[in-house]
Amino acid sequence: MTRQLHLNAFLMGTGHHEASWRLPQSDPTATTSVAHFQHLAQVAERGTFDSLFLADGPVMMGNVAQRPSGVIEPLTLLTALALVTERVGLIATASTSYNSPYNLARRFSGLDHVSNGRAGWNIVTTAGIEAARNFGVDEQPLHADRYARAAEFLDVTLKLWDSWEDDVFVGDKAAGVWGDNTKIHLADHRGKYFSVAGALNSPRSPQAYPLLVQAGSSDDGKDFAARYAEAVFTAQQTLGDAQAFYGDLKSRTHREGRDPNGIKILPGIVPILGSTESEAREREAELGEHIVHEHGQLMLSRLLRVPIDQLDLDSQLPDDLPPESEIEDFKSRYSLIVELGRREHLTVRQLIGRLGGGRGHFTFAGTPEQVADIIELWFTNGAADGFNIMPPLLPSGLELFVEHVVPILRDRGLFRREYTGVTLRDHYGLARPSNQYVRELSDSVAI
Amino acid sequence: MTRQLHLNAFLMGTGHHEASWRLPQSDPTATTSVAHFQHLAQVAERGTFDSLFLADGPVMMGNVAQRPSGVIEPLTLLTALALVTERVGLIATASTSYNSPYNLARRFSGLDHVSNGRAGWNIVTTAGIEAARNFGVDEQPLHADRYARAAEFLDVTLKLWDSWEDDVFVGDKAAGVWGDNTKIHLADHRGKYFSVAGALNSPRSPQAYPLLVQAGSSDDGKDFAARYAEAVFTAQQTLGDAQAFYGDLKSRTHREGRDPNGIKILPGIVPILGSTESEAREREAELGEHIVHEHGQLMLSRLLRVPIDQLDLDSQLPDDLPPESEIEDFKSRYSLIVELGRREHLTVRQLIGRLGGGRGHFTFAGTPEQVADIIELWFTNGAADGFNIMPPLLPSGLELFVEHVVPILRDRGLFRREYTGVTLRDHYGLARPSNQYVRELSDSVAI
Repeated sequence: MTRQLHLNAFLMGTGHHEASWRLPQSDPTATTSVAHFQHLAQVAERGTFDSLFLADGPVMMGNVAQRPSGVIEPLTLLTALALVTERVGLIATASTSYNSPYNLARRFSGLDHVSNGRAGWNIVTTAGIEAARNFGVDEQPLHADRYARAAEFLDVTLKLWDSWEDDVFVGDKAAGVWGDNTKIHLADHRGKYFSVAGALNSPRSPQAYPLLVQAGSSDDGKDFAARYAEAVFTAQQTLGDAQAFYGDLKSRTHREGRDPNGIKILPGIVPILGSTESEAREREAELGEHIVHEHGQLMLSRLLRVPIDQLDLDSQLPDDLPPESEIEDFKSRYSLIVELGRREHLTVRQLIGRLGGGRGHFTFAGTPEQVADIIELWFTNGAADGFNIMPPLLPSGLELFVEHVVPILRDRGLFRREYTGVTLRDHYGLARPSNQYVRELSDSVAI
Repeated sequence: MTRQLHLNAFLMGTGHHEASWRLPQSDPTATTSVAHFQHLAQVAERGTFDSLFLADGPVMMGNVAQRPSGVIEPLTLLTALALVTERVGLIATASTSYNSPYNLARRFSGLDHVSNGRAGWNIVTTAGIEAARNFGVDEQPLHADRYARAAEFLDVTLKLWDSWEDDVFVGDKAAGVWGDNTKIHLADHRGKYFSVAGALNSPRSPQAYPLLVQAGSSDDGKDFAARYAEAVFTAQQTLGDAQAFYGDLKSRTHREGRDPNGIKILPGIVPILGSTESEAREREAELGEHIVHEHGQLMLSRLLRVPIDQLDLDSQLPDDLPPESEIEDFKSRYSLIVELGRREHLTVRQLIGRLGGGRGHFTFAGTPEQVADIIELWFTNGAADGFNIMPPLLPSGLELFVEHVVPILRDRGLFRREYTGVTLRDHYGLARPSNQYVRELSDSVAI
C-alpha cells in the first residue's frame, strides 16, 4: 500500500467564498439547516473522506447585513450527524479558553461513543476580546497565556479520558459485582489554570481520545501542534511556503520525541471546478463579482489594525504595518495576509478578492485533472499529507469534488476506494492511544 | 378535547431498579449503548410520549463494584437521537453551577434546531462537593447560593435565546444584504455571577427556548420552579402528599403572576407490570431479591449523615436525625426518605428495598389496568398533570408500558392517540415564547 492522502471536508454554510450565498442556486439559510449538513456529510462519506470539520468561535462575529450569520454549535451539529453516517470522521472545533476540561472531556467522549469512534477535536485557543466578554473576561488573554492554558487543558482532558482502564467492566451478575474500582483513576489535577479532582464518569471511548487537531500556525501554535496534534489544518499560498511549513512542523514534532508520521499536515485548498479551465475561471469570476468590497475593507482594517481611510481600494497595503510580534490575535492569519499582498503586489481590492474567495487559503480554479495534479504535486513533494477541502459553493462544490476529483485520485492510487477501518484513527492509520495509568506490558517484561 | 396526560420516559441504563442489571435479560453495558437508547426513544415515540428524559451530574458517583456506572453525557446522547426520531421531546439535564450561560445556551439552541423544536432542559443546581471539585471549586456552594446563581443563569440564557428577533433574515441577494442588524440584541448582562456582553451566534430556534423543566422539591426549588419551570418532575409517595405538592406549586406559580396551567407537574412512578397482580408481585420480589443491602446501607449513611454502625438493617431509622433545615445537599430527597421510613415504620432493610426499587419514587406493582387506574386517580384528583414513567427494567418495562398501559389510557380519552403538534411545546400545549426585546403588538395597540 503506497502512502495515501487524507481528505477532510471543511463545511461552511453556503460555501467558503464569502459571496456564495448570493448565487441563485444557494440557500442563504443553509448555515442553520441540519438537512443541508446531513446531505453534505453523506456526500463526503460517499467520497470516502476521512472526516468532516466545522470551525467555531463562541461569539457573534461581524455583521448580519454582509453575509450569512449564526450557526448551530459544531459539536452539537456533528453529534446529530453521528447516527445518520457510518464511517466519516466528525471533527468539531472547541475552545480551551472558554470551556471547562471536565465538561468538554465528557462531550468528546460522548461523541466518540455515539459515533463508534469517529470524534475529532480541533483545539483552538480563541482570539479576540469579543469572545472573552461572553465569558466574564474583560481583558483579552495574551497569546502565550492562551497557549499555556491550552497545554494544561490538554493534560487534564487526557487524564480524564484515561480515567477508566479498558477492563473496568466485570459483569458478574450472580455475585452482584459490576465493575472493578481499582481500575478507575482520579484526575487529581491541581495546576495553574485548572483543578479537577475526580474521574470522568464515562468508560474509555472507542478511540480513547478524539483525533487531536490543531490549526494555528504561529510559533506558539506550531509548538503546541508538535506536542499534541495528530492532524494540522493550515493556510498556505504557495508550494514553497507549504514545504517550509511542513518541514518545520515535522522537525518540531521530531524534537518533541514523537514520530513525525504521527502528525498529518493538511493545507486548505479552495477548488473552483469547471469541466474546462475557462468554465472554472468563469465560475471564479462570477463569485468575485458578488463580493462587496466595502465589507472586505472593514474586515482588513480590523485585522491589520489600520484606519479604514488608509486602505484605498486601488492602492497596495500601507508600508508601515506592525510586525507579527506585536500582534496578539490571529497572528498567523495576519502575516499570511500581509505577505500575500506584498509578494504579489496586490491592491486592496485584489487582496479582498483573494481573501473573499477562501479567507486566506489557497484558491485554485481548474478542471478536475488540474486540481488532482495540484494535490498530487503538493502531496508528493513534501508539502502535504492530505488536504482540507474548502468548496467555494455548497453543496455543489463538494458534490463536484466527490464526483470528479476523487475518482482521479483513486485511479492514481493516491486515495482509498473504500473505508478499510471503522474509527477516525483507523482512517489516519493511528493506533488507539494506550492508557497513561496502565503500565505498558513492555515495561513489565523489561523488569 | 378533555384535559390530556403528559407522559415522560425517564430513561436509565438497565432500568430504575438498582438491581435491574443483574436480571438474566439485562445488558449490563446498556448505560453507554447508543443502540439501546435509540431503541428506547423509538418505543417511547411509538407510545406518543411527550418526551424522553435523562438525569445527570458532572461527577463519577458511587462505586463501580455495586452497579452499572458511567454514562454518555445526556445532552450529547439526546442530540444523537434527534435525527433518528421525529416527534418525541428530548429533555436533558444540565447544571447551572458548572456551565457557562453562553455555552449552554448554544447547546440547547443547537439541539432545538437539529430536532426541529424538541429540546427540553431539566435545570439542576448540582449538589455535592465531589462535583464542585471537578470544576476547581473546593467548597460546596450553599443551597441558597446555588439557586441564586441558577436564577441569574436563567435570566442570561433567556436574553441569549432572544438575541435574534425572528425576522433578522432579509436575504436580498441582488443588493447583497443578508440580514438586519437592528434586530440583533446584545445580552449586555453584568450580574453577581455572570457577565455576558454579546448576542448568541445562532438564530432564534423553533421553540425559542427549550421546554424549561425543574425537579427540586425544596422551598428554594419550588420557588425557582414557580418562576421559570414549565414542567416539574417530583417524587411523591402518596396521593395526599402529591396533592399537597401540586396545590402548593400551582399556588406559588399563581403568586409569581403566571398561569398555573403553564406549569405541568409530573410525579415519578415506577410501574412493575404483570398480566396478573400476582405476576407483577413476583417480578417485584425477583428484583428485590437481587438488592445488595450493604450497598444501600452505605448510601443511606451518606445521605442521612449517620455513621453506618447506627443503621442496623433490622431496626428503624435512628430518632435523632437532623432537621431538613440543616441539610445543604439533596434536601428534598433527605426529607422524603426520613418521612417514608417514619410513616411506614420501615426497618432499614425495608427502606433500602423501597429506595432500591425507584430511588424514592412511587413504586407500584400491578396489572396494566391497575397502573392505569392509579394514573387516572392522581390525574383527576389534583395530584398530577402527567407522569414521569420510570420503568424498573429496560427496555422491557417501557415496551410493556407502551403496549399495555398506553392503549388503556387512550381508550379512556386521557392520552393522545397520535401527535397533533411538532414541537415539545406543542405537546405541552404551550405557546412559543415571545421575544423580550420585541414590543408586543398588544402594547402598541393600547397606546
